[in-house]
Amino acid sequence: MCLPQTFASVEKTISRRGLFKLGAGAAAVAAAVAPNTTLAQQRRFSFANVQDLTHVIGLDTPVYPAFSPPVYKTLATIEENGIYANQLTLAEHTGTHMDAPAHFAANGLYIDQIPATSLIAPFAVLDIKAKVARDVDAEVEPDDVLAWERRYGRLPDGAAVFMNSGWGARYATPSAFVNQDSSGVLHFPGFSPETVEFLLAERNVVGIGVDTLSLDHGPSPDFATHNTWLPTNRWGIENLANLDSAPPSGAFVFVGAPKFAGGSGGPCRIIALY
Amino acid sequence: MCLPQTFASVEKTISRRGLFKLGAGAAAVAAAVAPNTTLAQQRRFSFANVQDLTHVIGLDTPVYPAFSPPVYKTLATIEENGIYANQLTLAEHTGTHMDAPAHFAANGLYIDQIPATSLIAPFAVLDIKAKVARDVDAEVEPDDVLAWERRYGRLPDGAAVFMNSGWGARYATPSAFVNQDSSGVLHFPGFSPETVEFLLAERNVVGIGVDTLSLDHGPSPDFATHNTWLPTNRWGIENLANLDSAPPSGAFVFVGAPKFAGGSGGPCRIIALY
Repeated sequence: MCLPQTFASVEKTISRRGLFKLGAGAAAVAAAVAPNTTLAQQRRFSFANVQDLTHVIGLDTPVYPAFSPPVYKTLATIEENGIYANQLTLAEHTGTHMDAPAHFAANGLYIDQIPATSLIAPFAVLDIKAKVARDVDAEVEPDDVLAWERRYGRLPDGAAVFMNSGWGARYATPSAFVNQDSSGVLHFPGFSPETVEFLLAERNVVGIGVDTLSLDHGPSPDFATHNTWLPTNRWGIENLANLDSAPPSGAFVFVGAPKFAGGSGGPCRIIALY
Repeated sequence: MCLPQTFASVEKTISRRGLFKLGAGAAAVAAAVAPNTTLAQQRRFSFANVQDLTHVIGLDTPVYPAFSPPVYKTLATIEENGIYANQLTLAEHTGTHMDAPAHFAANGLYIDQIPATSLIAPFAVLDIKAKVARDVDAEVEPDDVLAWERRYGRLPDGAAVFMNSGWGARYATPSAFVNQDSSGVLHFPGFSPETVEFLLAERNVVGIGVDTLSLDHGPSPDFATHNTWLPTNRWGIENLANLDSAPPSGAFVFVGAPKFAGGSGGPCRIIALY
């Protein structure tokens, strides 16, 4: 197996720094499997508007440096065969996609095991564009959640929480989206570990999402946010699109996660209803 | 390019028999792009239940004989790398998946071009299990649509229409699901060409779906149903799951179609809300 350098680096940092986080996450797993199943089943809502939150996945799609861009192989064309079809080769973590709990937890749910009831949720959009204008490595902090709540009320039970950092505008320019400096360090916003710890302890949140390549901000040395959040069997979404067009409060999201057996993630169609 | 035998066969039958169908479909394209966008945007509904209509995609997933089963390559594991991730190689038409219009129409919409508003629709389930018990090659006929309407009322505008033939129970046994006889002919139910012509002419339907490998029934020599339906820029879904658990009327479906650039289809997460 070809071992990407980034994964080797992560292994080391987890063994040094991540054990407490992993331990804390593992302790919460039993209580957190499909935490809002009953809530989702009891919920009623209506919508009049539809907003796509999904980027197109093409050959030039920006990917995390550990992964390769997708490859399409045309199997048949209308002109030659009367039918058009392709074969795709892609990392699970391509485009607008889900990180399933198993991506960072040996006993975490695979993407095909996430119940459908966890894929429809009310969602909050936390706008941190002003912070990002000052610092591209800015993070969603607990104060950003509390500021949202002062304006829109307490996060609904079973909610998803999405970061709108303005990064989606860079998607069409992969080098600006990945934003890797000359020493190999990435620079983009994400959720701070303290924020997901706050959400786990104080709120009932089923998933988080970012408009960047990673739940952790770019320079994270240890993926502490991933390692805190995913082992509790909650999902994460990366590379969300069009968050400026979604209302900050009052909308529902549908997360069309593929059911790859034993998968650590996969490209999703994500649509907001409001 | 390696040309699958099935595609070569289709090319011949289209040139002999499919020109009228293709011509008729092409004539309807201009009027049919995203036919229910406005309807979907104006619609309000609520739900209290969630039902997954999606099969798991594994290495033993049954595929149409022209395609190869999926291949998973593990890129990293928790034990070795602290992160678990795979690379997938699969035909677009694997598992519960969408046939985009471009699958059968040179000018049809690619899967990434289908508007989000066409992916949320009220849906009808036509139960033809009694017919299939007598003939595994049975087709949904216009009379099946009319029988459903006598019981549940006229198909809603912008609806999706799904065939429940009972075939989903065979999914775990690929040879029974594909059901290829000794001369290479497939045997399973589908929509008749006359039924999709009726739906195009007399109703406002955004998509159709089947619990089998193909919109056409297994022995179709020319994919006439595909060739009538898809060139009008409406979608099709194949390999739907759990249709016995969805209400025949009154539910909405969310079709989580991936946005593969220029794609002819792709695995979908499909969830019923009611």
